[in-house]
Amino acid sequence: MNDRDYVLRKHREHRGKIEVIGKVPVETKEQLSTYYTPGVAQVSVEINAHPETVYEYTNKGNTVAIVSDGTRILGLGDVGPEAGLAVMEGKAVLFKRFGGIDAVPLCIRKGTEDEILGFLRQIEPAFGAINMEDIEAPKVLRIVRQASHTLSIPVFHDDQHGTGVVTLAALMNALRLAGKGRNARVVIVGAGSAGIGISNMLIHAGFRNMLVLDSKGLIYKGRRQDMNEFKEEIAGRTNQKGLRGTLDDAIKGADVFIGASGRPGILRKEHIRAMADKPIVFALTNPSPEIEYEDARKAGAYIVATGRSDTPNQINNVVSFPGIMRGVLEVRAVSVSPGMLYAAAAAIARECRKPSRDNIIPSVVDKGIAIELTENVAAAVAKAAMKEGIARAKRSPSSIRRAVRDSIWRYKRIESGIVR
Amino acid sequence: MNDRDYVLRKHREHRGKIEVIGKVPVETKEQLSTYYTPGVAQVSVEINAHPETVYEYTNKGNTVAIVSDGTRILGLGDVGPEAGLAVMEGKAVLFKRFGGIDAVPLCIRKGTEDEILGFLRQIEPAFGAINMEDIEAPKVLRIVRQASHTLSIPVFHDDQHGTGVVTLAALMNALRLAGKGRNARVVIVGAGSAGIGISNMLIHAGFRNMLVLDSKGLIYKGRRQDMNEFKEEIAGRTNQKGLRGTLDDAIKGADVFIGASGRPGILRKEHIRAMADKPIVFALTNPSPEIEYEDARKAGAYIVATGRSDTPNQINNVVSFPGIMRGVLEVRAVSVSPGMLYAAAAAIARECRKPSRDNIIPSVVDKGIAIELTENVAAAVAKAAMKEGIARAKRSPSSIRRAVRDSIWRYKRIESGIVR
Repeated sequence: MNDRDYVLRKHREHRGKIEVIGKVPVETKEQLSTYYTPGVAQVSVEINAHPETVYEYTNKGNTVAIVSDGTRILGLGDVGPEAGLAVMEGKAVLFKRFGGIDAVPLCIRKGTEDEILGFLRQIEPAFGAINMEDIEAPKVLRIVRQASHTLSIPVFHDDQHGTGVVTLAALMNALRLAGKGRNARVVIVGAGSAGIGISNMLIHAGFRNMLVLDSKGLIYKGRRQDMNEFKEEIAGRTNQKGLRGTLDDAIKGADVFIGASGRPGILRKEHIRAMADKPIVFALTNPSPEIEYEDARKAGAYIVATGRSDTPNQINNVVSFPGIMRGVLEVRAVSVSPGMLYAAAAAIARECRKPSRDNIIPSVVDKGIAIELTENVAAAVAKAAMKEGIARAKRSPSSIRRAVRDSIWRYKRIESGIVR
Repeated sequence: MNDRDYVLRKHREHRGKIEVIGKVPVETKEQLSTYYTPGVAQVSVEINAHPETVYEYTNKGNTVAIVSDGTRILGLGDVGPEAGLAVMEGKAVLFKRFGGIDAVPLCIRKGTEDEILGFLRQIEPAFGAINMEDIEAPKVLRIVRQASHTLSIPVFHDDQHGTGVVTLAALMNALRLAGKGRNARVVIVGAGSAGIGISNMLIHAGFRNMLVLDSKGLIYKGRRQDMNEFKEEIAGRTNQKGLRGTLDDAIKGADVFIGASGRPGILRKEHIRAMADKPIVFALTNPSPEIEYEDARKAGAYIVATGRSDTPNQINNVVSFPGIMRGVLEVRAVSVSPGMLYAAAAAIARECRKPSRDNIIPSVVDKGIAIELTENVAAAVAKAAMKEGIARAKRSPSSIRRAVRDSIWRYKRIESGIVR
């Protein structure tokens, strides 16, 4: 229901989509003095003496900050932190419903890179992880990289990492169906957070025959115009022949098109006809994709995916971030690595039991899928973190699965009991 | 139950005392696309076009940030933000249970005044008000004053404002019982957040015969040692004769002693014997007061109050902050004024229907009191804000009372249903 009046009315009804409640009762003098003063002082003393016990005695280990400055909200651009709050509250509900995670929207005033970095350092003590969201690139890419090096909690950037994971997961199934492999020729259009995230994820996954374009055309080593350190890195690991030109040039003979361009309609039917056999087209710009699903199919695309919920194969980050964050929190990882993201993508791809041209990626609204999906993604991410030595806690896959199930079922009971 | 093992065990059981839940269900594709993408974009567009609607479409108007850097946690001093988190989570539960307010603990890394001020400016868009807590003075006093001038949301400082309100409320009833008035001679020991807050509250209430001491003795105009701008202000409005000396000198003939000194046991029985007829003794340092309740009574104190829950007349901020914050939020006040705080104190004092020597202040654990208390304090604060022109929204007392009742009853149902 995207009807404007309906959406606004539903939002007005509730005045916000989240609330903060207690996990303990404070009805009696005894409860008050256990969970608040004077009893709680004992807990503070204990945490001060043994800092790692903050994970045992507080909610830090299950709490994620959703940080956004509102500069790149959905397809709307810089609409400000207040407007962004509506989106981030929705995201917090998804974190709880699909991951059992307590997420706090922190929509902050626009600032410099250093100011946002300073903010992340300030909030680090109270949160188990940070989810960066809808902040303009390349600023946010620099902040995330810097924060990942300086903070001791994971900094997950959904537009970059989440999109990279879910796109790779869908691509794995699509290529299998098309009988192609990692040597497929992939053309990616877009070098913002999503484009960079997808490119880096695919590079990590072993794709080498890649071309990446931004609004100025192909990215190549030595290009001067409109470059930044992230495009430079991409230039060094793709486009080995140093091709120059536009999408018209790049698309010829390509096996895969991935659009994260922010420019609706740039992929034309002729482009698809110029691609290799069994073309795979992911037109991910929202709400209007690089080419409409039907048009892409009519032009001969073998598999088509978009970001929209009204056509098959919706590439939607919600299948990735709850499980990734849950896995990260379960083992108290210090950061999110490409290996952990790759493990998440593989787990999501496997979740599609019978892949077909119109079923290359699971959906969280499929009955029964959501919990299993989070379980499997969380377990895979946690395993990778432990293997790479970036986990502070050891957890068995079965205990992680149980924790995921328990927390989501518990929330489903809360949801059915109190949410109108 | 302050037993260490019991308190630690209860905290470990729950791993934190709060959680973030949804107010809306996200089970179906329709719900997902109403409360999240693509539908929510309509809400962002609306808020961007009409900024004041953020109060209609998001939870901003019911959300409070509890900001602490952990430098002055309870009586423990600088134990750090992680240790502070245990306390602030408890406070968040109290905000919900007694005020129907969603509070988010933001325990931040220690920083300069400018860094904390910058932090408050950054989070302003997402919160309806800020509650400052357990930060070292005088730094926090400067931050609060500065923030009050620069932010457009109220900055409430519980250690200063909350303590001032509840102390004045108790004092109003105590003086009435003792047959004394605003010309009573009041001695206040302590010039940290609490001492300054109480002094300023009493000055605003019309007390003029006051002496304030810090650890160096009486504060007087022209004193050089250990002064700051807040003590200077106090010096200009108390101690009109410019007395110098110690508590031994100040206490002679005093009607009221108020201790917020952080120094247990400094008030001796001889001090009380040197006071005027029907001495009133508020020994508020926690957990060990300036004099024990029994000792003060034995020495002849007419009325004794402490911060402890195990003797009568507990001076506890929890009777003030939920109602004050609720009133502030209901009318979307831009700040918290002395007039609003005074109105809160008067409302709390009135809540004690049959004051007696051991009943000068209401308690939130008295059956039936809590909701009415919050209702009355919120209505009084909102009325004062509207009268002073610092309210952005007009609300009738009855609609405020209904909102308080509805939200607290709603939470009581949640608490009884899901909290173990």
